[in-house]
This record gives sequence, structure tokens and C-alpha cells, in this order.
Amino acid sequence: MKRVIVVAALVLVAVASYAAPKVSRKYVDASTLTVINKAQPGGGAFERLDVARYTLTDGADKVFRQSTGLAVVFRTNSSSISARWTTDYRTPRPITTDVFEDGLDLFIRHEGEWVFAGIARPVLKGDRYEFVIVKHLPEGEKECMLYMPMYSRVSSLEIGIDRDAAIEAASSPFKHKVVFVGSSLTHGAAASRPGMSYVARVGRIINAETPNFGHNGQCRFQQHFVDIVCNTEADAFVFDAFSNPTGKAIEENLYDFVRKIRTKHKDTPLIFLQTIKRDNGIFDAKGRANNDYRLRAATQGMARVCKDFRNVYFINPAFDVGDDHTGTIDGLHLNDIGVERMLKVVGPRLKSILKKHGIK
Amino acid sequence: MKRVIVVAALVLVAVASYAAPKVSRKYVDASTLTVINKAQPGGGAFERLDVARYTLTDGADKVFRQSTGLAVVFRTNSSSISARWTTDYRTPRPITTDVFEDGLDLFIRHEGEWVFAGIARPVLKGDRYEFVIVKHLPEGEKECMLYMPMYSRVSSLEIGIDRDAAIEAASSPFKHKVVFVGSSLTHGAAASRPGMSYVARVGRIINAETPNFGHNGQCRFQQHFVDIVCNTEADAFVFDAFSNPTGKAIEENLYDFVRKIRTKHKDTPLIFLQTIKRDNGIFDAKGRANNDYRLRAATQGMARVCKDFRNVYFINPAFDVGDDHTGTIDGLHLNDIGVERMLKVVGPRLKSILKKHGIK
Repeated sequence: MKRVIVVAALVLVAVASYAAPKVSRKYVDASTLTVINKAQPGGGAFERLDVARYTLTDGADKVFRQSTGLAVVFRTNSSSISARWTTDYRTPRPITTDVFEDGLDLFIRHEGEWVFAGIARPVLKGDRYEFVIVKHLPEGEKECMLYMPMYSRVSSLEIGIDRDAAIEAASSPFKHKVVFVGSSLTHGAAASRPGMSYVARVGRIINAETPNFGHNGQCRFQQHFVDIVCNTEADAFVFDAFSNPTGKAIEENLYDFVRKIRTKHKDTPLIFLQTIKRDNGIFDAKGRANNDYRLRAATQGMARVCKDFRNVYFINPAFDVGDDHTGTIDGLHLNDIGVERMLKVVGPRLKSILKKHGIK
Repeated sequence: MKRVIVVAALVLVAVASYAAPKVSRKYVDASTLTVINKAQPGGGAFERLDVARYTLTDGADKVFRQSTGLAVVFRTNSSSISARWTTDYRTPRPITTDVFEDGLDLFIRHEGEWVFAGIARPVLKGDRYEFVIVKHLPEGEKECMLYMPMYSRVSSLEIGIDRDAAIEAASSPFKHKVVFVGSSLTHGAAASRPGMSYVARVGRIINAETPNFGHNGQCRFQQHFVDIVCNTEADAFVFDAFSNPTGKAIEENLYDFVRKIRTKHKDTPLIFLQTIKRDNGIFDAKGRANNDYRLRAATQGMARVCKDFRNVYFINPAFDVGDDHTGTIDGLHLNDIGVERMLKVVGPRLKSILKKHGIK
């Protein structure tokens, strides 16, 4: 009997120690840290816009609650960084990775530069995603920037650190704010991870927060874009406005779009990006004709706009992916190569325009 | 009564014309065309290996039935090309696109070069995928190469063309055959579409069929790789053999792996690629140490192998993604930028080695 009790006790101890949770990590609600790249105050902590303030069409009510372009900035001395999060309102995208749509992308400041440190793959553990982003970090305090999902709304996000480590909100690392409005190209198809989207990369190049109002397939001079822009204080606005509308729609709507924005923002730089010379045009004759019309309407429309309004700029070409047909996933949407090539063209032009306006 | 009959007749005609299927397109079973990049005969039409011939471990029995690396080549005068297909045995990949895992990527010969023409997104229509890849093609016969899914088994594939167009099998456009064995880097993570995987791109660079035996996470000198290589007639073999094993496993297994292959292939060039200098090592000290061991073991092991065996080559560095931390999706797996940079290093070296052996 005594032996039975001893064995039972040993089993109990074994089970208890096995069942005890590994408490090597603690989690902090990321909404208590600093969320950057929001254009305006209000809305959910991880939503890019307070959608209740606007009359939104074309599904923008859901899409503008996605965390596209947002990032959490914080400081920690933890040796590892992980994340637990949940998402909804996901836009399914055959041309983007799960990491881009629903995952996280961590950068750490290293010798003055923002350097890629690791991704959080959206891997379910129970009813939420959980992933260790980076381990075995060197000692000392690290300044971190965690880019959020591009095609989902983040309903909760917690940052995990060592149990004995500290974490605190960091102030925004960027002085200025340049707001992007656009199509799927701006929403971010088809870079591989959130921090590789062209808008995020531009932010690190021009040293500015870059709120992202990309809406795949739906950037067509609608009134809600005018309203959002007019309600936003920014150093400059960048428009990828010629990717979704037809050539005819550009002819009909561009001038009025700029005029409406100028009723509020009298002098703020408005920078328009020419759309991509689609890479499938080499074979698809009709597609090429449609897109040529689009490119021509943009060029002609911008000539008139730049003549009639001050501080309006046209970067042409902008989405310049080269001519070896490797820069897109589908003839239209820039993969990482396309983004890299585009930045070689757009980066210096943007910097030069912003510098002219004292934004540097 | 007469009026009722007339109305009923009109309704019937209307319904009939509405219900009549749009027969503007016809479909051809792709297994009746030419499938290239198969290492050996046998197995399903769209399977990269006849798995019944081998004793496969580590899940390779399923994975080597995937269509990774295969392509269908054909000629057609159709003005549009579409596809209907079904897949199974899909490996879920948070770091790759649906198009890469489960979709198709079409190239058309244009002025002597293989040029990207369009993708087929895996979009379900009923119980199978269906997608129009390209429309409005110029008149005349086109030579086409359709890359197949990288992380699925294709259970059926049909090519759709205009009803009045013709389609026929084309002979392989490539003279030589260079077989690739490797890890996820070779399996193809994380290029954006099948034709952008490094193995596919190398094929177009060196003008050779490039069968792909990449197996994500599972290329560790196993006997089945020896068996597959020994049963394959090829002009050369390329090994990405140092990405999955530990440094210790490389020290223990590399020499014997080469020795076994040399019992069958006495003189065939065996070209080994150094693994990637992982891009997360900048922060993860332990990860860096492990990978440094791996790199060192490969370098030392290859020195011995190259001394003892003829026609064995070591390309070091090989997966050279640069030093700005944009070349991978997760510190390890090459995105399109990483593949492009790697090819700048590996492409010329491979060409030069193959040329030395009369393979050009």
C-alpha cells in the first residue's frame, strides 16, 4: 500500500510539473504601445481609419478597417520577441502570401538603420495566431517596429517578451507624414511581407510616417477619398490614382478631384504617380490599348492640373518595373523585384520634391 | 390560344438560347501534350517522380508526386489560352502565394526568348480551378510553356483554346537535362510564381530541362536521393544539400553521399551549392552560430570531396541575396529579389562549368 501511495505521489508530481504552463514569456497588449502610420486619430487601435466618420462605398467600410500600413513601435530589452494575434475581414488574395495578408514583419534599429529581424507567420494555436519572431537577441535595449497585416483587420495583438524583460511604447521614429492613396499597387500587391510593400519602404527612405489608403481595385476618384484627404493633416499626399479607372474616367474625373482637394489643402504638395505600363501588354493587344489610353489620359490630365494648380507633381514613369518581365506576379502587380525597381525611380524623385518643401 | 402558343414558343426560344452553353472555347487534356522537366519516365503524367519505384521517407512519397518544376509545352494559334485543373496533396505554405503553390504560369516564345505571358490564379469554378490566362493574342502560331504548381499534385489539367483554333504537342525546347536536388530553397520558396523559381529561371538561362527534386525541410543526404540520382540520366546534377542538415550531419554524411552517387555516375558533373548565409543572423546569435557551423562544414567537406572525386564542383557563395536584408521573406527563403541576386552569382558559374563539359 505504501508503495502504491509513493508511486501515485510520484505520478502526481510528474503530471503537475508537466501540466504547469511554461511561464517563460509574458504578453503585452500592443494597443498600449505606439501605433504609427495612422492618418487621423480615432477608430480602433489597429484600424487605419475611423470609418464611422465617412460615407464609404465599394466595400471601403470593411477594407479601411484593415491594418494596412500600420506598425507598432516599442523598446524592449527582451532576448526574444513573439506575437499573439487575431484577425478578421480578410481579403483573399491568390497573388499574395499569408504573411503579407495576415502576418507581421519586425524591424529593429541597427546602427541607425531599420533592419529586417523576422516575420510572424499566421499559424493558428488554438483560436489565435502565435509565432516567435526572433530569439537569442543581443543584450541591451532594442528599438522595434512591427508592421501589421496588409489585407486583414487586426482584432487583437499582443507582443510577447521574456518574463523578466521590460517593454515600453516608443515615440514615432519619423518626423513627417506623407499619406498614400491608391489601388492594389498601393494596398501592396504583391510584395512578400508587410515591410516590403512600396509604401512601407518609401517611409523608411523618406523618413516619414506613410499612412496607406490603398484599396485593391477601388481607387476611382470617389468622394470618400476626397473626404479622407481633406480631413487629414499631412506634409504631402501621394496618389496612385490611374491604376483602376479607365482612360475615359480619368479624363472625366481627375481635374475635379484635384479641385475638390485644393478647396481644403491650399498648398500641400499633391504628388501623382503614373500607373504601370502593364507587363502583359506584349501579348494582349486589347489590354495594351486600354492601358495605353489610361497612361495617355493621365499624362494629358496631369499636364492641365499641373498648369492650373500650384505644388502638384506628376512622377512619370513611376511603377517602372523594367523590361525583362520579371517585375510582376501577373503583369500588373509588383512583386519584390518590381517594388525594388520602382523605388529606384520614385525614391529620388519623391525625396527631391519633399526636400523642396522643407520635408526631409 | 394562338397568341399563347406564340408567346410560349418565344419563351422557349429565349430560354433555349440562354441555356445554350457558350461554346466559344474547347479544352484539351494536357497529358496528351508534352510535359518537360521530368527526370525519369513513369509515374502520373503530372507527377515529377514515379514514387512506386522508390522507398521514400520523410513524406517524400507525397511531395514527389507534386508537379514541382514541370511544364507543358505546346503550339497553338488560339487568340486566348485558359486552363481548367484540379490539385491535391497541397503543402500549406504561409510564405508562398496561392499562384505559386497551386497555380500556373505561362511563357510564350517571343523573338527567340521565353517571355512571361500570364498566370492562372487558382480560382474555383464548381469543383475545379478555371482561369483565362491571356486573351487578344496576335495571329499566328505561338510556342507556349506552361509551368505547373510548385506545392501541389495536379490530378487533372486541361488547356482551353478558341473553338476554331488548333493545339499540338511541341517538342522540348531544351537540348540538355540538369537535375536539381535540394531543400525548400530549391522546392521554390519564396518566388512569386512557378516560372520565377530559381530552378525554372536557371533552365531558361542554361537552355536545359531542369527537373526539380526540392523537398522543403527534408534534403538530408537520405538514401532515396541517392537512389533517385543513380536512376536518372542527366548531363549534370546540382545539389542544394547544405540547407537542411546541421553542420554535424554535413560532416558525417556528405562524403559518403558523393561516394554512393559516384558508384553509378562515374564522371557526370556534380555541382554543389553553398547554402544561404541566413539573413536573420544579424540579430539571432545562436541561429548565426548554427548556420556558421553549417557553412563551415560544407566548405571543409567540399574541399575534401573535390580533392577525391573528379568533376565535382562547389559554388560558394551560391544563394547570395546581398546585404540589405530585402532578399528573403523570412531570413532564409529567397523572395524574387533574392532569386534575382542569386542568379547573378550562380548563373554565370553554372554556365561556365557546363560549357567545360560541352553542355551549352
